[in-house]
Amino acid sequence: MSFFFLPSFVSEDTDENVTSKALLNGTSALREEGFPSCIRQQQSIGGTPKVIQNYVYSRPPPWSDTLPTIFVITPTYTRPVQKAELTRLANTFLHVQNLHWVVVEDSPRRTNLVSNLLEKAGLNFTHLNVETPKSLKLGLSWIPSHTPRGTLQRNLGLHWLRDSFSNTAPPEGVVYFADDDNTYSLELFEEMRYTRRVSVWPVAFVGGLRYESPKVSPAGKVVGWKTVFDPNRPFAIDMAGFAISIKLILEKPQASFKLEGVKGGYQETSLLKDLVTMDGLEPKAANCTKVLVWHTRTERPTLVNEGKRGFTDPRVEV
Amino acid sequence: MSFFFLPSFVSEDTDENVTSKALLNGTSALREEGFPSCIRQQQSIGGTPKVIQNYVYSRPPPWSDTLPTIFVITPTYTRPVQKAELTRLANTFLHVQNLHWVVVEDSPRRTNLVSNLLEKAGLNFTHLNVETPKSLKLGLSWIPSHTPRGTLQRNLGLHWLRDSFSNTAPPEGVVYFADDDNTYSLELFEEMRYTRRVSVWPVAFVGGLRYESPKVSPAGKVVGWKTVFDPNRPFAIDMAGFAISIKLILEKPQASFKLEGVKGGYQETSLLKDLVTMDGLEPKAANCTKVLVWHTRTERPTLVNEGKRGFTDPRVEV
Repeated sequence: MSFFFLPSFVSEDTDENVTSKALLNGTSALREEGFPSCIRQQQSIGGTPKVIQNYVYSRPPPWSDTLPTIFVITPTYTRPVQKAELTRLANTFLHVQNLHWVVVEDSPRRTNLVSNLLEKAGLNFTHLNVETPKSLKLGLSWIPSHTPRGTLQRNLGLHWLRDSFSNTAPPEGVVYFADDDNTYSLELFEEMRYTRRVSVWPVAFVGGLRYESPKVSPAGKVVGWKTVFDPNRPFAIDMAGFAISIKLILEKPQASFKLEGVKGGYQETSLLKDLVTMDGLEPKAANCTKVLVWHTRTERPTLVNEGKRGFTDPRVEV
Repeated sequence: MSFFFLPSFVSEDTDENVTSKALLNGTSALREEGFPSCIRQQQSIGGTPKVIQNYVYSRPPPWSDTLPTIFVITPTYTRPVQKAELTRLANTFLHVQNLHWVVVEDSPRRTNLVSNLLEKAGLNFTHLNVETPKSLKLGLSWIPSHTPRGTLQRNLGLHWLRDSFSNTAPPEGVVYFADDDNTYSLELFEEMRYTRRVSVWPVAFVGGLRYESPKVSPAGKVVGWKTVFDPNRPFAIDMAGFAISIKLILEKPQASFKLEGVKGGYQETSLLKDLVTMDGLEPKAANCTKVLVWHTRTERPTLVNEGKRGFTDPRVEV
């Protein structure tokens, strides 16, 4: 009738900080396909006979040898809504062909919650972790406070790419930084897939605006930024507003997000200035006239009734 | 290489308040399948030749004649994050087999934003609208204030079901009320699909708790409610925590959500008490020990830089 699709790379890397589900040989992502049937048993109630049913959806779409890979780097951290955020992100990514999800936890070790979620989702993934030092989080060090969340994690994702792929024979593909609370249309991923160097597009709900956008000339070149906050930044663009060809990431091994001396709103610039000039940007999403990604934020839930001793069963994962 | 899947029911109902994409004949949902290829043109930059690419994912899964249908009723209303919320909801629903989405706008007419989104998503859907009178919204009438949002819209969804299907030959299926800001795991839909009368499960982030849950006896019967807020309510359960067989909805044509004289937290009870007793509830999600749905809430974005005259192009849909 139907089938449950799960790629069968379940071998774990021996490196302590890495779980990877796709074997990468420096030029292309390999993948085996398995079609196990998922049998579920209905709860038997009141002595009626047990009903056994097959259910399923086909996910993710089959891996293609000809399509460029989209490497999505997602920093994440433990909080009540983490599993919900990652669940809906996975539900979106499961529609996207040749997507490899690089999830980087801000934590001293990879958590079971994220490991289990990634294993169950059926996506190609790499699971990494690096903890942001408390001194950076609290702004107690000589480093300016307000260190943007996710900086070390995104850099580890870049490091993993450079470790996994050879600069002399780069794979076809693109790198995108997708935070776990944003909303992504499926079209966005096809817009970015054929990026040559760095492609750009509008992002909704940033900078106090309905959307921020690159300014595109009639000739289809990026010539500036439609933003209110500091439009003269070299790259006045949100993290969700650009993708970089993997080739470019491998060609420029020193390019990374900077921790020190970076003003608010300049994280993106701190990476992009090492990779490209404004002249080299490729406007996507119909010359930056369509919104395909939204910088949504999820409210912290109130858990006032848990009380000091709790109320719900702590063994139940939320 | 791959294909873009879109059911080809694009005929509009003539009824002013309804757009329906699936033809329903009272016993089963029919569906034609089309496999048009979606050709996209890359933006030509700097005089290089245009590249034409085929992209795509297969969505939604093929309709099955043997699986019960899941009718999801979603009330929604115009606000900055509406399109983002509906986008990620669609991305989730596109994985679920035999899902029919009944979207009911709280507005005087169906909006283009929602119409276009539904047409593009590729889901089976019915698009309805009913505006909540201002007197109810503002609590100015003799009806108690704090009218729960979505009440009239959910009732219109129930009305549509009763109008579309015959009580004497009910289809196999289930009705679920899914608000547009919650987070849904894919497993949830398979838990509810074979509901006989009313099935129930835990919901995260309600009642000031990590999760609320039905209390299940060792024999697998629902015997009460693990909640802090008013656990003695007849049905102390969130809207996202139950599904009802379509047969039961058709058998009890008077059952609906009540507008008048309903205390906070009693909306769910106002419907369920007409349909079932606690004894008839079917616990799902491993006897209510697993969280498969999260009552997430999205922050209202700050648009302070739009200013009085705006800043962004109002023709760009967000």
